[in-house]
Amino acid sequence: MIDGKKIRAPLHRWKSTMNQPTRFVLDEPRLPRVWYNLAADLPQPVPAMLHPGTRQPIQASDLAPLFPPAIIGQELSVEREIPIPDAVRDVYRLWRPSPLIRAHRLEQALDTPARIYYKNEGVSPSGSHKPNSAVPQAWYNKQAGIKRLTTETGAGQWGASLAFAGQLFGLDVTVFQVRISYDQKPYRRALMETYGARCLASPSTETGFGRSVLSRAPDHLGSLGIAISEAVEAAVATPDTRYALGSVLNHVLLHQTIVGQEALMQMEMAGDDPDVIVACTGGGSNFAGLVFPFLGLQLRGGRARRYVAAEPMACPSLTRGRYAYDFGDTAGITPLAKMHTLGSGFTPPGLHAGGLRYHGMAPLVSHLRELGLIEAMAYHQTECFGAGRLFARCEGIIPAPEANHAIACTIQEALRCKREGRAETILFNLSGHGHFDMSAYQDFNAQQLTDKTYDETELATALAGLPSVS
Amino acid sequence: MIDGKKIRAPLHRWKSTMNQPTRFVLDEPRLPRVWYNLAADLPQPVPAMLHPGTRQPIQASDLAPLFPPAIIGQELSVEREIPIPDAVRDVYRLWRPSPLIRAHRLEQALDTPARIYYKNEGVSPSGSHKPNSAVPQAWYNKQAGIKRLTTETGAGQWGASLAFAGQLFGLDVTVFQVRISYDQKPYRRALMETYGARCLASPSTETGFGRSVLSRAPDHLGSLGIAISEAVEAAVATPDTRYALGSVLNHVLLHQTIVGQEALMQMEMAGDDPDVIVACTGGGSNFAGLVFPFLGLQLRGGRARRYVAAEPMACPSLTRGRYAYDFGDTAGITPLAKMHTLGSGFTPPGLHAGGLRYHGMAPLVSHLRELGLIEAMAYHQTECFGAGRLFARCEGIIPAPEANHAIACTIQEALRCKREGRAETILFNLSGHGHFDMSAYQDFNAQQLTDKTYDETELATALAGLPSVS
Repeated sequence: MIDGKKIRAPLHRWKSTMNQPTRFVLDEPRLPRVWYNLAADLPQPVPAMLHPGTRQPIQASDLAPLFPPAIIGQELSVEREIPIPDAVRDVYRLWRPSPLIRAHRLEQALDTPARIYYKNEGVSPSGSHKPNSAVPQAWYNKQAGIKRLTTETGAGQWGASLAFAGQLFGLDVTVFQVRISYDQKPYRRALMETYGARCLASPSTETGFGRSVLSRAPDHLGSLGIAISEAVEAAVATPDTRYALGSVLNHVLLHQTIVGQEALMQMEMAGDDPDVIVACTGGGSNFAGLVFPFLGLQLRGGRARRYVAAEPMACPSLTRGRYAYDFGDTAGITPLAKMHTLGSGFTPPGLHAGGLRYHGMAPLVSHLRELGLIEAMAYHQTECFGAGRLFARCEGIIPAPEANHAIACTIQEALRCKREGRAETILFNLSGHGHFDMSAYQDFNAQQLTDKTYDETELATALAGLPSVS
Repeated sequence: MIDGKKIRAPLHRWKSTMNQPTRFVLDEPRLPRVWYNLAADLPQPVPAMLHPGTRQPIQASDLAPLFPPAIIGQELSVEREIPIPDAVRDVYRLWRPSPLIRAHRLEQALDTPARIYYKNEGVSPSGSHKPNSAVPQAWYNKQAGIKRLTTETGAGQWGASLAFAGQLFGLDVTVFQVRISYDQKPYRRALMETYGARCLASPSTETGFGRSVLSRAPDHLGSLGIAISEAVEAAVATPDTRYALGSVLNHVLLHQTIVGQEALMQMEMAGDDPDVIVACTGGGSNFAGLVFPFLGLQLRGGRARRYVAAEPMACPSLTRGRYAYDFGDTAGITPLAKMHTLGSGFTPPGLHAGGLRYHGMAPLVSHLRELGLIEAMAYHQTECFGAGRLFARCEGIIPAPEANHAIACTIQEALRCKREGRAETILFNLSGHGHFDMSAYQDFNAQQLTDKTYDETELATALAGLPSVS
């Protein structure tokens, strides 16, 4: 893996690309009017979620304490196209359509025949793809008369996005932020508070589950699974309150497909067509957002492409997890989903890509992996930051630690193209910028960042503890 | 001044603006091919800079130890249009043309008949307008065979931009960062280092002048004037090294005019025309960048507009300074410029808008003020952050503390429009985002941000110490 130290020379000898465009920007009227629902085109349906108590397939009514009716409808829908409300498009316009960019300088630095494009989702207010789902979720809750939302957040990308969306529609937002990220990234908390949300470190003393975790482990780093348990508990216990999830569920992935729908039009503008599409995966939402519209074309008879999910070696659900029914949270109060999981009792080691620190994977993404339609690769933290710093020095943008996984994978693919002499087209999702993650780059620059991996014994224990489903 | 607390209600009753566009985006081929030089259209020339020793008008040769020939040519040029090199446009394309955005939600929150537009310069790699000049400066130095650049930075916007530009062209960059900002904004230093630059707190022990300041005041907060002295001293003392300045000088203002030239085209796309143009001023570069192309039209017989410079109450060079010859730096080694100055011996109080913490003002901007062509207003820190938070809650973007001054002024103008029932068009420069300034928002959210003002006695002393020019 390239670490960025040798990057000067190629740019130094930079060959102008003024005869080739760099940025592909769609006009506001071309902002998509529908989200694309992959469920309509699957060769086999995704296994149903199960009720945590009865272990029978969940019904819409089971989800009513958590979500408003419109969201539940989307979660279970098999309609191919779902209209985006005007009020949501009105907000999307603040930053969407997001640009598609040809990474000319990264290509030259790698001396690869591959053409590299990236979709820049870092241009949103909170700096990632997350508002694509936060805005409609807040809107549908507002329409249903809900007054308050609770949620979890890892690195803070999702929490900040929901804080922003809640503010726009007049909803109170409480965010349970995983403690390690709360401590590592104080500026994301400041961002949430600037948008008007309340932010708590999880495990917290505000919920029964948080208190029970703290009583056993007062210094617990937290995890997305624990924060979800707390947010769900708080939502159910408070009147006029619902819960919002930032990834994993079908409706979240649905909202993110606006990314890929724009990218389809933009690749056409570029007169190019991706052979390989890459995105990082934590819960799966930015991967799904970019990949599903392309994969949908393929499933309807279009050309085949490679789709690669890039995940952290420290939390490798797709590459090392088991495909089984498991809870979405640690307390076991959410529905059971069939997914690649490290076990809901597993606490991933603290790493800077907090948004990828989740034990499970979106059921839709897991299903695609089982069907052999997508690939997955795992990367170490330091090689990801090396890739991210190289990207920053070429393209200017400082990527989020999560997005660095996609960049590491893209560089690996581009170097393969070089070895094989193949001029393939690679498209990746730059899911967010790293402006609030600079302490990680500080550590990396000072060579104080280390590779983390999970504890094999803990993983085995967590997998042994998977809930039994008849 | 509105502090953002009452903002929910109007957005809560949000009226859709889907029938009106929000973002005005120029295609890549419309990226300007020339910079606009206001010197060609001035009714009277700017008073010449003077040599610090002889106090006679400087010659091109006097500047040769500091700048490469192309830059010196631009500094003294009176040509109206100066071509932008292809290599510079090739880099500009990474983020330019930058979007012009109609602030529909801010308008509704203020319930004003005014139409508010802003140019978003925060989309650049380093997050502000500064790369518009850093890139050509690095390029011209590279073309002249220079190997190393030194510079100063306040908040770090300029230092990060030169770090990025130097990296692209293979130049070593050393940045002297004002100590208070170095301490307040550690992430900007991490950003500079990620781009490959070396960053030192100023006053430093690396220069004779830095050591002399530290010997008198070991805890000195630093100032832009001191950092400039250090960077100039280091450049002159090191082979193959030149100095780069991020504001104040004619060539820097020239490079920034790409902002206003794009805005002219974008206002035409919007079918609108600004009555008032607002920008914050520290050294004057983002103000000049947006304003000069519009003002140039006016000076060549076009319509008159109001141009308002927004500065901090704590460092009010345009509203409280004297129009006189003064040094650009504290040590007195730079040329003397006729400008609005608080005295080059003046140390402004520490405030979060570190980029505005400069004792002087661009001679071109000062000249316009003397000619009565522009206005100036000063604002307190807390009202600026109130304005910035309101903006963030409406429009999503977290503005830089510097840009908050422009927003405070814009809101004041929009509320005047409301009182007077006038549907004026206001355009302001959102010179940068505040992602690396979140500790200031943290303090503001916790109501721990205070208004700072200068010490009247210190100001009187500094003004009394202005150099005498016959």
